[in-house]
This record gives sequence, structure tokens and C-alpha cells, in this order.
Amino acid sequence: MKLTMLYSFLKADIEEIEKELSKAIDSETALLKNASLHLLQAGGKRIRPVFVLLSAKTGHYDIHRVKNAAVALELIHMASLVHDDVIDNSEMRRGRTTIQAEWNNQVAMYTGDYMFARALNYMTVIEDATAHRILSDAIVELCLGEIAQIEDKYRFNQSIKDYFRRIKRKTALLIAVSCQLGAVAGEASAEAQRRLYRFGYYVGMAYQITDDILDFTGTEKELGKPAGGDLLQGNITLPVFFAMEDRELGHRIRKIHEDMPKEDLQDIIDLILKTDAIKRSSVISQRYLVKALEQLDELPPSRAKKSLRDIAIFIGKRKY
Amino acid sequence: MKLTMLYSFLKADIEEIEKELSKAIDSETALLKNASLHLLQAGGKRIRPVFVLLSAKTGHYDIHRVKNAAVALELIHMASLVHDDVIDNSEMRRGRTTIQAEWNNQVAMYTGDYMFARALNYMTVIEDATAHRILSDAIVELCLGEIAQIEDKYRFNQSIKDYFRRIKRKTALLIAVSCQLGAVAGEASAEAQRRLYRFGYYVGMAYQITDDILDFTGTEKELGKPAGGDLLQGNITLPVFFAMEDRELGHRIRKIHEDMPKEDLQDIIDLILKTDAIKRSSVISQRYLVKALEQLDELPPSRAKKSLRDIAIFIGKRKY
Repeated sequence: MKLTMLYSFLKADIEEIEKELSKAIDSETALLKNASLHLLQAGGKRIRPVFVLLSAKTGHYDIHRVKNAAVALELIHMASLVHDDVIDNSEMRRGRTTIQAEWNNQVAMYTGDYMFARALNYMTVIEDATAHRILSDAIVELCLGEIAQIEDKYRFNQSIKDYFRRIKRKTALLIAVSCQLGAVAGEASAEAQRRLYRFGYYVGMAYQITDDILDFTGTEKELGKPAGGDLLQGNITLPVFFAMEDRELGHRIRKIHEDMPKEDLQDIIDLILKTDAIKRSSVISQRYLVKALEQLDELPPSRAKKSLRDIAIFIGKRKY
Repeated sequence: MKLTMLYSFLKADIEEIEKELSKAIDSETALLKNASLHLLQAGGKRIRPVFVLLSAKTGHYDIHRVKNAAVALELIHMASLVHDDVIDNSEMRRGRTTIQAEWNNQVAMYTGDYMFARALNYMTVIEDATAHRILSDAIVELCLGEIAQIEDKYRFNQSIKDYFRRIKRKTALLIAVSCQLGAVAGEASAEAQRRLYRFGYYVGMAYQITDDILDFTGTEKELGKPAGGDLLQGNITLPVFFAMEDRELGHRIRKIHEDMPKEDLQDIIDLILKTDAIKRSSVISQRYLVKALEQLDELPPSRAKKSLRDIAIFIGKRKY
């Protein structure tokens, strides 16, 4: 089953947002346009816009109003991906070369800046001071998460709490805010706004943990980039914490460094896969999903609510 | 005479903003805090906050309200400097090592992102949709200007129009917006808002041209970085356009490249200084200043207006 089938009734609106995204990154500057298009055309799940729209559907839905928040959130997400690739020196993203690989770090930096600036343009249409406060706070946290990720690289004595805080900042908050801003733009009740925020937060946590699992279990074709990349980059994700509980394996993991031969890393990944690290990580991801679904329970029944539920369940099972 | 003497009656408020800037970049993440402080403590003229405050003084001045716009604009400016240094691979800024030289490109990128995000936090206090639109448009232009600067590097057949558009985007617009937002925050008349925007725009153009002249005529001590840096980076500034009118010198300038020995570059700079390029550039800078002052003429007399006038004149004569 495809993710898009879970919100097929939004098809026309999602297409509208896709068109708007193309318009957003259009620019007379060829370099900027090409670099932005390069990422946009690589696709992506557009999960943030989908959450914005579905959350708005729990209130008074006006696509012309809410689309601005949806476009803004996807642009902010894309900007953060571009800057993230600079940090990680990533070559591939969504089956394509990254902007920094195709052009260079400088172009990637300004392409991210530009997407971010365009996001702000779109947000100004939402004349609600609270919405702006929520979003700018989330962006600050996003930056803190990215910096923490640099600081925590290869720091094998960090705690699992550091990991959870990092993925909260890096992923969960922006998804939470997608849901919340959708609800705000749709003028949903304060109760619905709170519930949807929490739903997004829990889904986001589950989503990132699944991502971190897939980095071990996925194939290069499924991931659109080589597997095991996180560990090679020194990013210590949930399965690694569990794997390090094995004394001998922990010892080998702690010796991972940037210039390690690929084969040695593959050995370690194979050993991690033989532990219960993946299974235990999945359990935690599932636990977050259950919490997400509980938030929805309190909302009145609707097609949007059913979609949110289906997407959350899909995310828990996703293989890419 | 010192610049600060021209607005001494604002001393307490400027100190308040300085305090707020320190607070803004404070962060539990040591890396981020140290990198941001590194730039903040290097000082700077804080010309954007000063323009915000003085412009607000033409209306109803409330420091608690207007300071948020002032802090936001200085943070956006600082963020753009940090990203600019990554592009230019600059080692020095305001007599200090740059963040990218002291740490690395990655840290500089996220420090800029963080400052920018914090700027948005401050802006959300200004509940005026127009203000947000003005600012986000200016930020988009700022990014376009930075990208254009990359594209136009070593492109010696560009037109002088490309230069003016670049400095408009890179410098003048944000100064224009500083004045405009100050006026908006102070609820000054629509006429005053328009006039102050234009004043800022013209001052900004003059300011950047002077900056570009000083890069040739200033000493390393005055500039806080080595002279001639622009040309070595391939940034073609106003004096270079005039110097290239000399056929032989133009021929030599067009051969400038990244790995050129410093002595060869110094030779070319010395030759440029012997032409009328600096003088002709100064004339254009002065012309912008005159236009700036004309905008003020139409505003009712006030201490703030006198300060704006004095600062504009000072900027035309500045040596650093």
C-alpha cells in the first residue's frame, strides 16, 4: 500500500501545494533555482504538509489560507535537510546527489537560507502572532538539535537521554508544530490544537526512531543513500545504545572513526543486527505510536482523524 | 569624533539592546554560545539597531516594543556576516578570527542559522503583519544577493548594474528595512515610514560603496582584516569597474584568480589606487548620501532627525 492512498481525498490540495512549492523556489538566479529544484524533484513524503492539512480539517478548512503554513513547513524541512547534508558531508539524498555534492557547501548553505527565507514569506500570510511564536521557537530548537548533533558525534559516552532530546529537536518538534499550526490555521478548538501537537510530537519521535532503525536494516535502494551512514558519521542512534550494552561489541563501536574502512564498519553493522538492538528500538518506536494514537482518541470522529490514524500506523510499519 | 556621540541621548537604550543581544545568543549549548559570543564581542557599529531606534523616535517611542525589532535586525545582520565569511573563506572579521576560521564551516553555518532563528523569536513580539512581510521580503533579497555574489565572482564581464543590484540586496535593503520597521514599530505616519525607508536605502548604498572603497584604501588595522580582500576573492566592486576602463589595467585585472600571489595582487591594487577609480566611486557614494539627506528634509525637525542626518554624513566620511 502507498502512503498517498491514506489521504487520497486530499489529492487536489496536495497537488496545489506541490505547485506552490515549485513557485516558491522559482528565482531569476539560475544557480539557486537549479539547486532548489534538484532537491524538490527528488520528491519526499511531504508528510509535514499532509499533517498541516489534515489537522486543519479538524477545524474550518480553507485551503487558500492553510496552504501557506503547509508550504512554509515543507520549505523549512527542506532547508534543514540541505544544511544537514553539509554537516554530514552526504553524497546522496532521496536517490539523488545532494546539493553540496552536485555543487558545493557554499551553494548548499545559501540554497538552504533561501528556502528558509521563502518559508517566512509564506508564513506572513498567517496573521496569528501565536502561530509565529510557535514556529520560531521550533526553528530555534531545530538549530539547537543540529548543533547538538555536531557536538555529540563520536561521543560514545553520551546518554540515551541526549539521543531522545536530539531527535525531539531535530524531527519531532517540527512535525508537532505542523499539526499544531494546521489546527491553528483551521481555527480548531484549543483542546484539538493541544492534542494534535502531542500527536505530531509522538509520531515524530516514532518516525525518527524508525528512520534510525532503517539506516541499519534498509538497502541502499530503499533508502536512496548507502546504509549504515549514521554510524559512519558518528551519529549515535537508538540501536547503537542498545548494541553497546554488549561489552565486546560496545568496545568495537567506541573505536569507530571517520576514516574507518567500509568493510570494518559493515562488520560492526552485521554484529549490531545480530543483537536485539533493532527489536528493542522498534518496541520504543511502537510505544510512541500508541501514545500518538491515544491523543487522537479524544478528538471527534472525522475522515481527517481516520487519515491521521492510518498514517501514524503506516509510519510504524514503513520500510523506506 | 566617534559615531556613538551622534546619538548619545540613546546611550541607555543602546546598552539595553547590547544586553538583549547577549541574552539572545545565550544557549545551553556551549559550542553555539561560544561561537556566537565570539562574533558579538568583536563589536560592530550596531548601525541597524541605531537606525531602528532613531526611526521609531519619529513616532511614539516605546523602547520595550521597538527593541525587539532592533535586536532582530542586528541578529539577522550578524547571521548574514557569519554565512558570508563561510562563502568568502574569510579568516578575519572586526579584528578577530572568524567563526569558520576558529571552528569550521559547519559550526559557522549553524551559528548563523541559530542567530537567524533567534531573530525570528524577537520579531514575533511585533504583532504587525506588514512588518513581517517587509522583513521576510528583505531576507529573501539578502539571500539572492549572496547567491549573486557567488555567481558573479571573477565574472569580469558583468555590468555595473549587476554591482548596484548586488549591494542593494546585500546591504541597502536591510538598512532601509531597519528604518522602516523602526517607523512602523513607532507607529509613525505612512509618509514618514516611506521617507525613512528611502533614507535607509540611500544611506545603505553609500555605506556599501564606502566599504568597497575602504577595502582598497584602508589599512589592515583600520579594517580589522587584510586590505584588498574583495578583489582577491573575485568580488568586483565599484572602484574595479572604473579601473577596468583603463585598457591595460583592465587586462591585468581580468587575469586575477584565486591562487594569485599576494604581491601580484598588491601591484594591481597600487595601480588601481593611481587611477581616478576611488575618486569617482566616492562621488557616487556622496550622491547617494545627498539623496538620503533629501528624504529627511521633508520630516518635521527633531533630535532623532538630526541624529539620522549626522550619522549619514559621518558614514560618508568614515575611515573604518
